[in-house]
Amino acid sequence: MRPSGRAPDQMRPVTIEPHFTRHAEGSVLIGFGDTRVLVTASIEERLPPWLRGKGEGWVTAEYGMLPRATHTRGSREAAKGKQSGRTQEIQRLIGRSLRAVTDLKLLGERQITLDCDVIQADGGTRTASISGAWVALRLAVNGLLKEGKLTVDPIRQKVAAVSCGIYKGDPVLDLDYDEDSNADADANFVLLENGHIAEAQATAEGATYDEESLLRLLRLARMGCTEIFRAQDKALSA
Amino acid sequence: MRPSGRAPDQMRPVTIEPHFTRHAEGSVLIGFGDTRVLVTASIEERLPPWLRGKGEGWVTAEYGMLPRATHTRGSREAAKGKQSGRTQEIQRLIGRSLRAVTDLKLLGERQITLDCDVIQADGGTRTASISGAWVALRLAVNGLLKEGKLTVDPIRQKVAAVSCGIYKGDPVLDLDYDEDSNADADANFVLLENGHIAEAQATAEGATYDEESLLRLLRLARMGCTEIFRAQDKALSA
Amino acid sequence: MRPSGRAPDQMRPVTIEPHFTRHAEGSVLIGFGDTRVLVTASIEERLPPWLRGKGEGWVTAEYGMLPRATHTRGSREAAKGKQSGRTQEIQRLIGRSLRAVTDLKLLGERQITLDCDVIQADGGTRTASISGAWVALRLAVNGLLKEGKLTVDPIRQKVAAVSCGIYKGDPVLDLDYDEDSNADADANFVLLENGHIAEAQATAEGATYDEESLLRLLRLARMGCTEIFRAQDKALSA
Amino acid sequence: MRPSGRAPDQMRPVTIEPHFTRHAEGSVLIGFGDTRVLVTASIEERLPPWLRGKGEGWVTAEYGMLPRATHTRGSREAAKGKQSGRTQEIQRLIGRSLRAVTDLKLLGERQITLDCDVIQADGGTRTASISGAWVALRLAVNGLLKEGKLTVDPIRQKVAAVSCGIYKGDPVLDLDYDEDSNADADANFVLLENGHIAEAQATAEGATYDEESLLRLLRLARMGCTEIFRAQDKALSA
Amino acid sequence: MRPSGRAPDQMRPVTIEPHFTRHAEGSVLIGFGDTRVLVTASIEERLPPWLRGKGEGWVTAEYGMLPRATHTRGSREAAKGKQSGRTQEIQRLIGRSLRAVTDLKLLGERQITLDCDVIQADGGTRTASISGAWVALRLAVNGLLKEGKLTVDPIRQKVAAVSCGIYKGDPVLDLDYDEDSNADADANFVLLENGHIAEAQATAEGATYDEESLLRLLRLARMGCTEIFRAQDKALSA
Amino acid sequence: MRPSGRAPDQMRPVTIEPHFTRHAEGSVLIGFGDTRVLVTASIEERLPPWLRGKGEGWVTAEYGMLPRATHTRGSREAAKGKQSGRTQEIQRLIGRSLRAVTDLKLLGERQITLDCDVIQADGGTRTASISGAWVALRLAVNGLLKEGKLTVDPIRQKVAAVSCGIYKGDPVLDLDYDEDSNADADANFVLLENGHIAEAQATAEGATYDEESLLRLLRLARMGCTEIFRAQDKALSA
Repeated sequence: MRPSGRAPDQMRPVTIEPHFTRHAEGSVLIGFGDTRVLVTASIEERLPPWLRGKGEGWVTAEYGMLPRATHTRGSREAAKGKQSGRTQEIQRLIGRSLRAVTDLKLLGERQITLDCDVIQADGGTRTASISGAWVALRLAVNGLLKEGKLTVDPIRQKVAAVSCGIYKGDPVLDLDYDEDSNADADANFVLLENGHIAEAQATAEGATYDEESLLRLLRLARMGCTEIFRAQDKALSA
Repeated sequence: MRPSGRAPDQMRPVTIEPHFTRHAEGSVLIGFGDTRVLVTASIEERLPPWLRGKGEGWVTAEYGMLPRATHTRGSREAAKGKQSGRTQEIQRLIGRSLRAVTDLKLLGERQITLDCDVIQADGGTRTASISGAWVALRLAVNGLLKEGKLTVDPIRQKVAAVSCGIYKGDPVLDLDYDEDSNADADANFVLLENGHIAEAQATAEGATYDEESLLRLLRLARMGCTEIFRAQDKALSA
Repeated sequence: MRPSGRAPDQMRPVTIEPHFTRHAEGSVLIGFGDTRVLVTASIEERLPPWLRGKGEGWVTAEYGMLPRATHTRGSREAAKGKQSGRTQEIQRLIGRSLRAVTDLKLLGERQITLDCDVIQADGGTRTASISGAWVALRLAVNGLLKEGKLTVDPIRQKVAAVSCGIYKGDPVLDLDYDEDSNADADANFVLLENGHIAEAQATAEGATYDEESLLRLLRLARMGCTEIFRAQDKALSA
Repeated sequence: MRPSGRAPDQMRPVTIEPHFTRHAEGSVLIGFGDTRVLVTASIEERLPPWLRGKGEGWVTAEYGMLPRATHTRGSREAAKGKQSGRTQEIQRLIGRSLRAVTDLKLLGERQITLDCDVIQADGGTRTASISGAWVALRLAVNGLLKEGKLTVDPIRQKVAAVSCGIYKGDPVLDLDYDEDSNADADANFVLLENGHIAEAQATAEGATYDEESLLRLLRLARMGCTEIFRAQDKALSA
Repeated sequence: MRPSGRAPDQMRPVTIEPHFTRHAEGSVLIGFGDTRVLVTASIEERLPPWLRGKGEGWVTAEYGMLPRATHTRGSREAAKGKQSGRTQEIQRLIGRSLRAVTDLKLLGERQITLDCDVIQADGGTRTASISGAWVALRLAVNGLLKEGKLTVDPIRQKVAAVSCGIYKGDPVLDLDYDEDSNADADANFVLLENGHIAEAQATAEGATYDEESLLRLLRLARMGCTEIFRAQDKALSA
Repeated sequence: MRPSGRAPDQMRPVTIEPHFTRHAEGSVLIGFGDTRVLVTASIEERLPPWLRGKGEGWVTAEYGMLPRATHTRGSREAAKGKQSGRTQEIQRLIGRSLRAVTDLKLLGERQITLDCDVIQADGGTRTASISGAWVALRLAVNGLLKEGKLTVDPIRQKVAAVSCGIYKGDPVLDLDYDEDSNADADANFVLLENGHIAEAQATAEGATYDEESLLRLLRLARMGCTEIFRAQDKALSA
């Protein structure tokens, strides 16, 4: 039995509130249950120097956790003067996932930065970030198309992400904090709507796992992403 | 005429949503018009080493601005590896303002940290932070009283803060971003409900000012704080 | 009674020794009693990149405290690898105060940096810094006028600063270290010779204060600045 | 055709030279073709403070790349003052992989640090690091057993790691630099000798991939790890 | 001919003003011509953790250069967030030089820190620092002896330091800035009054040098130190 | 008697393995007994901005110590976020020593960086680094001459370096770790084949020394460098 009473293949409610803030070219507040992440997409018409002159754009991400997003207060990375290895790993993953569905040549020489800031954490903050970031990116690119700055849509696919893991011996979908901190293995899958995989990561925590388990986790992730794609659609048509 | 069409002594709507997040001992989302700050109060039952053994507690604050809270994206302080002078100045002011109304001996050997994170910025983020932080602190201390960890209330007074300034020659209350970036002088007042002053800061930007102007700004601030005290009451009785 | 035996409205002796070092375009050693600050003004004919092309110059300040300027040795900020929040707050205040009396357009595309290094500290280091920095700036600009690099004087006014505070219930002028560490409230005023205010900051330390007290502190500051203006004149005519 | 002329399922020669340095409790120089990593295992009989008192030990890793290990010189992380996100991601992966096969309770309250320093880089430095680190760890633990500091072996399994990827549409084993920089997808698998998986990571670079491809990459990794296990055995029996 | 018109073996005037600041246990302003360094000695009765429990004390030094001590303004190390290699090299040399004449066991478990801050630079700042630091140390230790905290003098010898170099082919004593920046070789010698050497450093800048030159430089240094010892005596008997 | 049983004027075996890595323009693994340093020379055809436009090149060095090069593991400088004073002092010395024999005008507007990374430490790492760096530089410059990028050889002389010291009262050559940590004085000499000196540094550790000792140390260094020059020749003719 899962601590939350959910079925093994049951997602937490996925909520996506678009246009949560005013200034960003795209913004959403995404929730996977009690996990809530504010994502903004910022368009800059200039690339940083090391990316200029290749005739293509760039999509990147930054990730942060408010100090009291968690059960006990963590220290503020700005005050400590550096981002943790975990933070850097997550923001690299988010950026990669969005670039996997973006045609950078079509985007043109501009940069879009996805800022993913965790307001409240209850497991799955990186996958919620990716899933929300795609909507924020979509909103920002819609603006560019509407303003005529782009004529061809550079976003090739929808992308969503979800965690799953082996908890007390059973594969389960969308780990919350209680499960995450006690899982034998946990995995994150970044999937496209056409079934393709952008990123698969499965890590043994308490126990190593076999190939069959890897496949069952992937199947759960497919079910989760179907729900997330639906929530993304709903948010965009709102 | 003010860009927003407000009267010189007119505040923007003050909104305070208590219990905005789940984990913190106190939390609010405070809005001064489009300025929105998430404030959480975190209680730690242990003091940092340098504060121990004096038979009293500590109240402190940290301040941050999400990168895209502003009209154009700013860089993330955690990524740059240090907090700006402005950030440090603001968080010192917030902490001082709350300590001015807290009896640290009555608080006992525990620390309460107020994290003020600006979700959206449109002027007045430091004064909104102080005004919201007082409510978050109140909620956290209410919890300590309810749990019996405290028997006497260490909060002696209500505190609120508001900015005002001289815009196109006229003293006006509660500057928004447009006014703030063009003001001749801007001021921040931190006031108690009994009329006392915890902090007064008035800075010439475009033009120096005279004693009469300082007094008029203080009078505007008193009017603004009356409204903020009302919003604080309403949030706490919700 | 004040620890030093001074009357409530009595400044410590103000001493200003011009041309204390050789290389700087302007330099003074200023003393407010035992507080001694070395201030140098350095002219650079090039602006930093982010200030170029606006047809105006910049005046800025940096502040430091020698490790053993104080009663017990403090750690060296260069060794710790960062400037404290206090240091940054002070150097921002010094720069702002001098820009309040300088016409940056008339200054032209050059930068003047005021380095304020505290040799010995006994309260009031920031106000001594501002008062001395004005003289160093004046000396540096005199040089530009003499060399013909400037033909119109960009300095519009004299500026001086002094601290005052409420000590054992009474407003007193020019706090020394003993008073400063036990004051109920302390204030810093940056005043122009024509009576205008460039900056007013009054902070409750042990007790909040009322409007009447704020005004009495301001009146003390006016008396103090009158003496400082006299000392500045004397140093410049030396 | 692969640039090196290798067959799709062909590893580069795996060489492991044990006892490469004198001071470390375990050390190897491991080569995957031209990629060469020096790995040392250092035993400390004291845990860092935050790990003490749990009745168990810790295995951790650090990773570095000599500035001219690569085709063109990269900057030295010690000189830049921080480790890159990539470095941190890799050292977290190495540590996790070794902890997956170590019984930390049996290890006792001591820490073993695996330092993986890349002398020469030609793709696959993180998987060579893991594969070599296991041998260095084995040598260090053998010492503890021999000295009687341990009586039961805390290492439960062999572990090895290898990269593979989709290059010009075809799954291939053990990417070298030329392949790595042009792969459509690249993957790293950390496998146990019993077939279990400690870590699976597969990332779309130029193109997303399907489930079938993921499984083919895993099968290639199994073939590669078989060879690495053999080389590990040989090094240990030398 | 030397730019200053001095003879090859002629020192600049050496001036040592003791008790230049009030708070430090020992302090001097030392001048070698236009080079002026403020040195303070601070006694702490507690050692830092890593030095405790060995039954002996420690003497250490820190060095800094005010930004406008030099002909053109340098950046402030505290603002840059790190000390240069040059600064660290110099402060290591100063500490070593004083420890060479101090019996750390006799000093007891306390630390004396010599802060050497260059007010004005014209060549020879490190040797002026060492020469002044000895006087500040002497003053601080005199205080410990007077207060009865020490009964046996831990300072075994006088120490002084001077630079010399090969300028336009000729060995000269006590290089000023003009000579220093054009010397073929420059050297620093730290000498005891009994003729022994604590440190000898001779570096080729424009041209390598032979053994004979090294010996001539050492002889010049002996002459210079004789004058410095005299100035030290005079300062202490003042 | 020396711990190693060596005669006072006996070097440890000097081994130089050229072309130890593939990518660098020059590379060697140099050994002074158990001390082993990997040195690579990297040519960059562009100078850093602050060196451009003077019609000459630059030779510089960086130095690092692998964490477990030493008897007990030291912390990794990249992880600590800064290079120690010792590291910076050494890399400045290495760069200076090589520039002493290089005609920077003849080198042309390019930079050669010598990376000296200590694989195993047993005393004398800085002198081994210099001696090895010269060979790596020689190899790199040979390549430039061969490719026709240079027509005149910018290397004017051979350079080598060795440590010596006073151990239990006797001058000895080439200190190993046991001697180094117990020496009364230690010295490093950087010598040219023609007998000239590029750098002489002799430091009192346990006891100050006299002029006669300095000369005896220099004579030992000459003997040691003769052997090193021979090993350099052998490596280059291999």
